[in-house]
Amino acid sequence: MTSAARLRARMAERDLVHIMAAHSPLSAILAGEAGFDGIWASGFELSALYGLPDVSLISMTQHLDMVRAMAEHSSLPIVADIDTGFGNAINVIHALKQYERAGAAAIVIEDKTFPKVTSLIADGRQDLVRTEEFAGKVRAAVTTRSDPDFLVIARTEALIAGLGEAEALRRAAAYEEAGADMILIHSKHRTPDEVESFVRAWDGNAPIVIVPTAYPQMTEPRIRALGKIGMVIYGNHAIRAAVTAMKDVFARIRADGGIHHIDRDIVPVEEIFRLQRMEAVKEDEARFLR
Amino acid sequence: MTSAARLRARMAERDLVHIMAAHSPLSAILAGEAGFDGIWASGFELSALYGLPDVSLISMTQHLDMVRAMAEHSSLPIVADIDTGFGNAINVIHALKQYERAGAAAIVIEDKTFPKVTSLIADGRQDLVRTEEFAGKVRAAVTTRSDPDFLVIARTEALIAGLGEAEALRRAAAYEEAGADMILIHSKHRTPDEVESFVRAWDGNAPIVIVPTAYPQMTEPRIRALGKIGMVIYGNHAIRAAVTAMKDVFARIRADGGIHHIDRDIVPVEEIFRLQRMEAVKEDEARFLR
Amino acid sequence: MTSAARLRARMAERDLVHIMAAHSPLSAILAGEAGFDGIWASGFELSALYGLPDVSLISMTQHLDMVRAMAEHSSLPIVADIDTGFGNAINVIHALKQYERAGAAAIVIEDKTFPKVTSLIADGRQDLVRTEEFAGKVRAAVTTRSDPDFLVIARTEALIAGLGEAEALRRAAAYEEAGADMILIHSKHRTPDEVESFVRAWDGNAPIVIVPTAYPQMTEPRIRALGKIGMVIYGNHAIRAAVTAMKDVFARIRADGGIHHIDRDIVPVEEIFRLQRMEAVKEDEARFLR
Amino acid sequence: MTSAARLRARMAERDLVHIMAAHSPLSAILAGEAGFDGIWASGFELSALYGLPDVSLISMTQHLDMVRAMAEHSSLPIVADIDTGFGNAINVIHALKQYERAGAAAIVIEDKTFPKVTSLIADGRQDLVRTEEFAGKVRAAVTTRSDPDFLVIARTEALIAGLGEAEALRRAAAYEEAGADMILIHSKHRTPDEVESFVRAWDGNAPIVIVPTAYPQMTEPRIRALGKIGMVIYGNHAIRAAVTAMKDVFARIRADGGIHHIDRDIVPVEEIFRLQRMEAVKEDEARFLR
Repeated sequence: MTSAARLRARMAERDLVHIMAAHSPLSAILAGEAGFDGIWASGFELSALYGLPDVSLISMTQHLDMVRAMAEHSSLPIVADIDTGFGNAINVIHALKQYERAGAAAIVIEDKTFPKVTSLIADGRQDLVRTEEFAGKVRAAVTTRSDPDFLVIARTEALIAGLGEAEALRRAAAYEEAGADMILIHSKHRTPDEVESFVRAWDGNAPIVIVPTAYPQMTEPRIRALGKIGMVIYGNHAIRAAVTAMKDVFARIRADGGIHHIDRDIVPVEEIFRLQRMEAVKEDEARFLR
Repeated sequence: MTSAARLRARMAERDLVHIMAAHSPLSAILAGEAGFDGIWASGFELSALYGLPDVSLISMTQHLDMVRAMAEHSSLPIVADIDTGFGNAINVIHALKQYERAGAAAIVIEDKTFPKVTSLIADGRQDLVRTEEFAGKVRAAVTTRSDPDFLVIARTEALIAGLGEAEALRRAAAYEEAGADMILIHSKHRTPDEVESFVRAWDGNAPIVIVPTAYPQMTEPRIRALGKIGMVIYGNHAIRAAVTAMKDVFARIRADGGIHHIDRDIVPVEEIFRLQRMEAVKEDEARFLR
Repeated sequence: MTSAARLRARMAERDLVHIMAAHSPLSAILAGEAGFDGIWASGFELSALYGLPDVSLISMTQHLDMVRAMAEHSSLPIVADIDTGFGNAINVIHALKQYERAGAAAIVIEDKTFPKVTSLIADGRQDLVRTEEFAGKVRAAVTTRSDPDFLVIARTEALIAGLGEAEALRRAAAYEEAGADMILIHSKHRTPDEVESFVRAWDGNAPIVIVPTAYPQMTEPRIRALGKIGMVIYGNHAIRAAVTAMKDVFARIRADGGIHHIDRDIVPVEEIFRLQRMEAVKEDEARFLR
Repeated sequence: MTSAARLRARMAERDLVHIMAAHSPLSAILAGEAGFDGIWASGFELSALYGLPDVSLISMTQHLDMVRAMAEHSSLPIVADIDTGFGNAINVIHALKQYERAGAAAIVIEDKTFPKVTSLIADGRQDLVRTEEFAGKVRAAVTTRSDPDFLVIARTEALIAGLGEAEALRRAAAYEEAGADMILIHSKHRTPDEVESFVRAWDGNAPIVIVPTAYPQMTEPRIRALGKIGMVIYGNHAIRAAVTAMKDVFARIRADGGIHHIDRDIVPVEEIFRLQRMEAVKEDEARFLR
C-alpha cells in the first residue's frame, strides 16, 4: 500500500484529516507520535529553517531532499507544498516524478506566478497565472503520476489576489475539471468568513483543503459543521514552536550563566536518543558486529 | 577579517567564550541574537534533525551543506564538530579544506575510531586510535589550513574510554605538540569532578574546551574560577528545546481540536518573517523590480 | 587575488580570452591543462550530464554544487551560466551571493523569460522579459557583488527571438547602462553574418562575448580581426566529445566481446590516477599516516 | 518488476551479463543504448569525475545522488559500488536502505578496511577486516533488504592483499555462508592466471563476478569457457573514453584556433538533444502549455 493509498484510505475513513507542518524528519516523527494524519512538507518552514525568505529561493533539490528524508523516517503520508511547481507545466511534470519517487503522497500547486513576490509589489490581478495555464499544469500533473492514488491538490490564491469569490469558484471548478483531486482555498482575512462563504458556495465534488493560520478560530468542530472540507493543514506551527523555545532557552542560558537551570525544563538527552532510535543500533551492533 | 580571526580576537578579549549548538541557519541566527560568541555545528543535533542516530551516518556532504548555509546567514564564527574527521589523516585533509571553504572558523576532531559505536559494544581501549595516529591527523590538519587563524581543536575521549587521567593528559600533551590549538576534554561523569581534576592537572599552553552536558552544575563562574578553560560549548540544548516545544504544541493542537489556543503561546508569523529578513526582500523589490 | 581578479587581469593582458565548457571538475582540470583561460560552467552540459533537457529543470543547488567542486579542483576562473538567474531580480541577488561564495569569477544572465521554453511554443516577442525588467536584474547583480572584480555579463537573446539588430543594440546599451561588464550576443544563424553585423554596429564600451556553436567558421583570427570581442566561449564541445567517445568505446566493447582491443585506444588507468592526484595522497600518507 | 528482479531474470536467461561503468545518467543512457545488461555505479569513475582520488573521499550522499539520477533516466539495473559500505555493519544497514530506495538493483561491498589506503602504506594483511567482521556486514545487508531480489555481492581483496588463493577461497565461502548472492574476486596481476585459478578452485554455489581491468585478454568467450562467472564488469572505460576524447578535442581547438575543424568530428548538438529527450518536452509543451 503506497503512502498515497494510505492517505486516501484515511480520508475515506474520517470526515476530516489533520496535517501538521514539518521542516525536518525529526518534526515529522513528532507529528506522527502526536497522532496527526499526515505531514505538510512546508516551503515556508523549510525556507525559515534555512534563514531564507519564502520567495522561491529554496531550490527543488533542497525541498526534495527534505521530503525524501522525512519519508524514510516517518510512516505518515507527506503532502508536499511545491508552490507554483517551480515554473510552468514542464517543470510540474519533472517535479511530480521526483516527488512521487521521493515518497510523497500528494503535491499542492498554486496558481500564482513564479517567482513569488511579496504583497508590496504584487498588484493583485497580475499575481495569478491565467486559469487555462494553471489548468494545463493540473492536467500535466495528473497525466504524469504513475500511482493513481497520488493526490494533486490545486490551490487558488484568487481571494488573496483580491479577485473575489466568483473568480475563486470559477478557478476551483476549472481546476477540478482539469483533474485536481482537492481544492485548497486560502484567505488573508483575520476571520473565517471569507473561506466559509466560499465553502458554502462550492458545489464541486472535490473536497476542500484549508490552512487556518490567519483565522485560528476555525476549529475542527466548526470545520466539520461546515462540511465539504476534507483536510485541514496547520501550516507553520512547528517552526514557530521551535523558535519560541530556542529563543527562551538561549536567553536563559545567557542570563543564568550556564545550563544548570534550563536542563530541567527541556527533554533529557535520552529522549533524543529514543527519537533517533539508538536502541535499534545497539541491537544491530549486538547482532552484526560481534 | 576571517571568521577564524574574529573567533581568535573574541577569545583574546574575553577569558571564556560561549558556543551554542545549532542544527540549522535559523538556530544559528537565534544564537547570534541571544549574544553567544559562536556556533557549535553539532553532529549530534544534525543527526537528530534527520532522525538518525549519531553513529557516523550523516555524511560529510550533509554536515558541510548545513555549515555553509549557517555561515551565509549568521556572522557568528562556526566551530564544526567533525567527529573523527570522516576516516584517517587523508580524510581530515580533505575535510579541512572543505570546512575552511564553507566558512567555518574551527574544527573539532576526536580520537575515537571510525565509525563510532555505542557503549554496548565498545570496550574502552579499542575505542580510541593510537596516540601517534591521532597526532598525525592533527598535524595533517594544521599543515593543511590555508588561514593560519583557523583553529584545530583536538578532543580526547580518554576519560570516556576509561583510560584514566594520566592517559588523557599524555594524549592532550601529544596533540598540543602536534599543533592542536585547543584541547577538548570530555567526561561522562554526572558531576564535574573528573573534568575539573583534569583541568587542574593540565600544564600545557593550549586552552581547554569543555562541553558540560552531563554536569550542568559546571556554571560559567565555576569555569572561570578554575581557569585554563577558554571555551564552553552547550552541545545539544537547541534541539532539546525545539523538541520540547514541538511535542507540547503538537499535543495541544490535537487536544484542543485546533490552533485557537496555541496561537497565542508561540511567536507570531511576523517574527518568522523578521528572522527570514522579509523586509530586505521588500526593499530589493522596490529597488529592482519596478 | 580572487579568481575574478585573475580573469580581469588575463583579459587586460590578452585581446581575446578562450573559455571552454565543462560539466565536471574533471573536464575543468583538462581544460586547464589544455591552456584555456577559463571554464564555462554550462547549464546545457550539466543538464545533458544528468540526462535532462535544458529547460530550467536542473536546480540552482545542482549547478552550484558543480561550480563549487570545479573551483576546488581547477585554478581557472569560472564563468557561470545561470540562464535567467532562476527567476526575477530577487532570485538574481540570492544567486549572485551563492556563486561568489562558490568561487565563480563571473555570471552570465540572459533576458529570456523563466522558465525557458523550446522554439515550438515560444513565439519570439513574448520570449524576452521587458528591457527595464532585465536592466533591474543587472543592477541587482552589480549592486550585490562583494568582489568588485566579479563580472556580470548580460546576454541578450534579441536576435534569436527575431527582434532584429536594432532591438538587440538597444537592449545591449540598456544593459551596459545598468552596469553589465560585458555583453553576450547570441544568434541561431548557421553563419557569422548576424553576429558580425551586430559587433560592427556596437558602439558601447563593454566588450562583446560570443558563443560560436552554430557558426564554427568564426575562428579566433576572424574574431580578432573584427575587434570589440573580448571573450569566446566554446559552449558544448566537452560533452559532445565525451559522448562521441563513450558511444564508440561502448559499441566496440560489445562488438569485440571484451576490452582487449579498446584498452589500447583509451588513456590508461594511470592517466586517471594522475588527474586525481594520487601521488599527493601517497605523499600525505607517508607524512601523516605512519 | 523491480530493477533487482529484472537483473536476476536477465542473469537466469543468459550465462553471463555485461555491466558497464558509468559516472552520470548520460553515460548510463549510452550504456543502455549500446546493449549492456546493467550499470556499474563506479566509485572510481565518480571520484575521477569530481577530480578526487579514490580513497573514500566521495561521500555516500554524492554517490547516492548519482545512483538516484541514473535510475531516473535509464531502465538498466544498477550495481552500486559502495566500497566498504562507508564503515561497519551499522553503516551497511543504513546504506543498503538508501540504495534500495534510490533504485539500485545490487550493491557490492568489499572486505578492505575503511578508509582505503594506497598500496604504499597498506601492508597486506592489515588491509582487510577479519572474515567474521565482514561476514557480519554481509548478514546485515541481506537481513536488511526489503526486496528479496536485491543482490548483495561480496568482494574479497584477499588476492590483492597477498593473502593467497586458499585465504581467498575461505573468505568467499564464509561470505556465501553469510548470505552473499555473488562473489567478486579481484586481482592485480596483469594476466588472468590468478583469477582463473581461483575460479577453477571455487566450489561454492554463488556465481563469480570479475572486473578484468588489469587483464583485458580475459574476453567474454574465455570467461564463458571457464564457467561459474555470472557477471563481468567493465570498471572504468567510460571515464577513460571521455578523458581521451576531451584531451584530444581540447588540444585541437587550441591548435586550430577555433572549432571549425573539430565540429565535424564530434556528435552534433542534435544528438545531445536526442539523449536529453527534447522531443518529449516539445510534445508536453504542445499538450499542456497552450
